[in-house]
Amino acid sequence: MRLPEAWIISVGNELLNGRIVNTNLSWLAKRLTIDGYLVRGAITVRDECEDIAWAFNTALKMGASLIISTGGLGPTFDDKTSECLSKALGKRHVLNEEALEMVRAKYKEKDLPMTDHRIKMAKMPEGAKPLRNDVGTAPGIMVEENKTLIIVLPGVPAEMKSIFELIEPLLRERAPPLHFVSKDLLVRGIPESSAAPLIERVMKRLHVYIKSHPSGHEVRRPILRINVVSSSLDRDEALKNVDDAIEMLKDLISKEGGEIEGVEDAW
Amino acid sequence: MRLPEAWIISVGNELLNGRIVNTNLSWLAKRLTIDGYLVRGAITVRDECEDIAWAFNTALKMGASLIISTGGLGPTFDDKTSECLSKALGKRHVLNEEALEMVRAKYKEKDLPMTDHRIKMAKMPEGAKPLRNDVGTAPGIMVEENKTLIIVLPGVPAEMKSIFELIEPLLRERAPPLHFVSKDLLVRGIPESSAAPLIERVMKRLHVYIKSHPSGHEVRRPILRINVVSSSLDRDEALKNVDDAIEMLKDLISKEGGEIEGVEDAW
Repeated sequence: MRLPEAWIISVGNELLNGRIVNTNLSWLAKRLTIDGYLVRGAITVRDECEDIAWAFNTALKMGASLIISTGGLGPTFDDKTSECLSKALGKRHVLNEEALEMVRAKYKEKDLPMTDHRIKMAKMPEGAKPLRNDVGTAPGIMVEENKTLIIVLPGVPAEMKSIFELIEPLLRERAPPLHFVSKDLLVRGIPESSAAPLIERVMKRLHVYIKSHPSGHEVRRPILRINVVSSSLDRDEALKNVDDAIEMLKDLISKEGGEIEGVEDAW
Repeated sequence: MRLPEAWIISVGNELLNGRIVNTNLSWLAKRLTIDGYLVRGAITVRDECEDIAWAFNTALKMGASLIISTGGLGPTFDDKTSECLSKALGKRHVLNEEALEMVRAKYKEKDLPMTDHRIKMAKMPEGAKPLRNDVGTAPGIMVEENKTLIIVLPGVPAEMKSIFELIEPLLRERAPPLHFVSKDLLVRGIPESSAAPLIERVMKRLHVYIKSHPSGHEVRRPILRINVVSSSLDRDEALKNVDDAIEMLKDLISKEGGEIEGVEDAW
């Protein structure tokens, strides 16, 4: 089955100088995979308008059905994602009245006035829809470009997750209702290079994707975590595919002298 | 000063289905920044030849001085980085004798024969140089394309780090000997949107880059970690820039009602 393809764009110098590990990416990638998308690629760029616009245009050119970005929505000078997305789309960057109301309501709580830096958070590409931010201040942004849905989220993880969950039902509607089953087979005593041809045999026979993750030492003390994944519109079918593949792997690996340590549910 | 630009390419389905958090990226980004590079962008792709070749070509087109990739160097069917890099460069994918010796020596330890899956790890673009892997089996790859140095590393973090450290002196030679100073000013009680214009004033005055990282709640309980960075060929100059900026920020923020919590050395 051909899944809709998603691209994830991460914006922020802190991701490219090693200050921050990008946990937003893995969180979104997992959720989108479960929601029925193939996450085809991810791009990380600095807080530079040219690079941010390039990232959106690149994902559009690659035929993304869905683009989700994180970062660069706040009130500071280096929060440029909204403005640069407008540039990328060739749309005017305008004050959105609905967004302005959202931002105003946040500051009203403490009677803080609307300053330029606060109003900035309500500007977005013309025709975009603001997404309510229940955790922080800056609204997210949703905009369609031809057949691509673009969702712009803040970089603060709690805010990103909260807005994502608001729009997740809409994302699910646009993807097939797939069920994923993922299990890990843990084995010892067989080098990854010896398991490789066995894995290929199982993948040729059954509708599964198998990937081995080595640890230990390939020759002296090989340890493998072999991840077996299947997806289907029918959960029982996906489960049967994975279980059959694991039984076949156990058999083949034992015959090659590997020890089976166990099976774990995995993501 | 114009720094040489680096791009980091991460290869692996596990990074795009959320199974793995990409700590290789943040580790490399930090080391390259310290080594005098501007990490301009990062691209993550699946184990698909077309996408891997696209990622290398994209970084080349963006004018990278250095491209470092991680992942896809092992013995399994889905380890395709070397072959797809050859395609991207329009070079023949050939058995490298020096690499073959490296791989053979690893398996000789246990008298394991050379199989197709093991020989595969010694194939690389014509003219490439293998990089010794002291931790695992698959050698890294170094190849020059016009003025771009391309370094291909395994995805297993311990192997990636070990090979990176072998070639780090060479990478440093190709970049200016910059000193970085990075400190965090911790403040409470001032919304990020109120700190934003103050930060802009300091950045206009001094040779520093300042980025605020909010936590808490913008209106009800604002907490900011304000990172101030400066780099220079002269360490004392970088340190003075950062310290001057922090003093100026402390003063401006206190006047706006923010409480100064402290200063920390930061990356």
